Amino acid sequence: MEAHEYMEMALALAARGIGWTSPNPAVGAVVVNNGRVVGRGWHKACGGPHAEVFALDEAGDEAKGADIYVTLEPCNHTGKTPPCTEKILNAGIKRVFIAMEDPNPVASGGIARLEHHGIEVTCGILREKAEGLNEGFIKHVKTGRPFVIAKSASTLDGRTATSTGHSQWITGEKSRRHVHELRHAVDAILVGIGTVNADDPSLTCRLDSGGKDPIRIVLDSRLSIDEKARVLQLKSDSDTIVVCGEVPAVPCETARKKGRLEANGVRVLEVPLKDNRIDLDALMAILGEEKIQSLLIEGGAGVLKSALEAKIVDKFRIYIAPKLLTGDDGYPITAGKGPLSMDEALTLSRVAVRHFDNDVMIEGYL
Amino acid sequence: MEAHEYMEMALALAARGIGWTSPNPAVGAVVVNNGRVVGRGWHKACGGPHAEVFALDEAGDEAKGADIYVTLEPCNHTGKTPPCTEKILNAGIKRVFIAMEDPNPVASGGIARLEHHGIEVTCGILREKAEGLNEGFIKHVKTGRPFVIAKSASTLDGRTATSTGHSQWITGEKSRRHVHELRHAVDAILVGIGTVNADDPSLTCRLDSGGKDPIRIVLDSRLSIDEKARVLQLKSDSDTIVVCGEVPAVPCETARKKGRLEANGVRVLEVPLKDNRIDLDALMAILGEEKIQSLLIEGGAGVLKSALEAKIVDKFRIYIAPKLLTGDDGYPITAGKGPLSMDEALTLSRVAVRHFDNDVMIEGYL
Repeated sequence: MEAHEYMEMALALAARGIGWTSPNPAVGAVVVNNGRVVGRGWHKACGGPHAEVFALDEAGDEAKGADIYVTLEPCNHTGKTPPCTEKILNAGIKRVFIAMEDPNPVASGGIARLEHHGIEVTCGILREKAEGLNEGFIKHVKTGRPFVIAKSASTLDGRTATSTGHSQWITGEKSRRHVHELRHAVDAILVGIGTVNADDPSLTCRLDSGGKDPIRIVLDSRLSIDEKARVLQLKSDSDTIVVCGEVPAVPCETARKKGRLEANGVRVLEVPLKDNRIDLDALMAILGEEKIQSLLIEGGAGVLKSALEAKIVDKFRIYIAPKLLTGDDGYPITAGKGPLSMDEALTLSRVAVRHFDNDVMIEGYL
Repeated sequence: MEAHEYMEMALALAARGIGWTSPNPAVGAVVVNNGRVVGRGWHKACGGPHAEVFALDEAGDEAKGADIYVTLEPCNHTGKTPPCTEKILNAGIKRVFIAMEDPNPVASGGIARLEHHGIEVTCGILREKAEGLNEGFIKHVKTGRPFVIAKSASTLDGRTATSTGHSQWITGEKSRRHVHELRHAVDAILVGIGTVNADDPSLTCRLDSGGKDPIRIVLDSRLSIDEKARVLQLKSDSDTIVVCGEVPAVPCETARKKGRLEANGVRVLEVPLKDNRIDLDALMAILGEEKIQSLLIEGGAGVLKSALEAKIVDKFRIYIAPKLLTGDDGYPITAGKGPLSMDEALTLSRVAVRHFDNDVMIEGYL
């Protein structure tokens, strides 16, 4: 096997941690002695041992003189666990292959330390794939803001629901399962109050294999949410946050409603308005401070439009079902005014396409 | 090589005739002697020799004792050329492999005759693929009507043009070239007067490799077309037909306009109206009688809607570009009233997906 094949293996291991490691990145490691894989590990949860520890422990004595493949530069600091560089040095590893540098200045320096101790280090193997695995972590470390994925689902003729708002289901089971995998992967999910009113969704992650509920965020500038909404009544390990404009401190119905929601375990987050809507840019800064690294927006044409206009969206993804509503009275994918010329359309880059039975998923970066 | 591989070869040869053979089907043939391909042929143009003739002529004496692979049951009648069954028998072919039976009762009976003369015949190899090659021919033979492909092109958020009607270009060069291949393949292309007014298209086939212009059909119930429209001024081997409602026989401006158009080489076809629009069902019957076997509708949300509602569409195809107009004021893919429930959406079957650079083409059958 070649270096990139071992790294593929390490990336596949890393992927098992997705959804569980935040605010840590998902990392995988493989120890190879003389062409034999003698240790494999991945970071399973924030606070737990790093990937390298699992892999080296499994390798035991066979780590001596061996190579290790790690999807992220081994950490060089004592956080919740001791530095991985030390573990690698103590294990007698001879060569270290790394997919990408650690963008986190606190934890980085691992490569330098390893090289200082005479270890041969190669960095950059399958870098792009490794970066794709931890887009939230990387953006958050670099900018302090969450990586935002906007998602929609439509018919071939561009409708997300019929004229009555009926949308269950446009896409097939496999597409919907894939969306639940995405919900598991992200830290938080955001919808507008319109979606809550129309569909009363629970916004949980429902996977047969288990999965983690993302934090649920509802944009509700006037705090108009129905107190019986499903999203407020959930039994879930994750919080529900209702984001509204400023609530008066003086006794009034809005203040009382806020109190009732909070008493019920719901968090009410007051964020400045901009043009009578939640200032999404300000909201992203707040969520970033709260270590929300990745956010999934399941719009709503209005919310999608606002998010695109506020330029907070990093990646757009749509699931297209091979169906036709043969009309233009259904719900559109995005709402509001578009540009006059096709040249001004936003063009996605690094476009990827996947198939889920007869549905087609298209995604790309903005 | 196995039988299906030789048949693939024959199908690839057949494909070279597409666009040139109508109202004949596209057919390919391969002669194989003892594992060696000794003859290859395809039907090049209506009136010319059939695929078998080219393949057997190339094989010469080596056809003796050989196998022949033909994508359509060899004809058994004397039309513009003598029956292929006779040619096969005279050549000394031992075994005949056929992809599909000839649906045309006039030409069929080839298998029976060959078997009657002791030839071993196997039919059905890659049948579905062979049928896909001649959908127009097959539907026309069976129903007397053209096979209708409805085509659109849109952004990811379901718009075919901006609010000003600007649409050039949504999709990339490769997608557009693919559309020109489709124009070459079909007998006729149909648009609404709205598309003529908005885009003033020429509706010709523009391929570097050459290609055949389809007959151009414009739906124009009130004969309101601008006489300077490009589609009326073309130098093309194919006709332009303007389809309108009944034109009064008495002198009037409409009658005079009809006369001017006809004097200019344009055909004006009067077709009954239904709800103030051209009765598409009646039009299909007329076009079928005129041996138009395949028709491409390049709608126009209104024309697409009418065609889907009239249930004349056999196949729907859309090219989706990875762009967002981020608004709902652009042109929709289909217009008018859709159903109330998502369950009533039309669902395509046998869905196929292709990529043209970053554009995605999705098509399926209705």
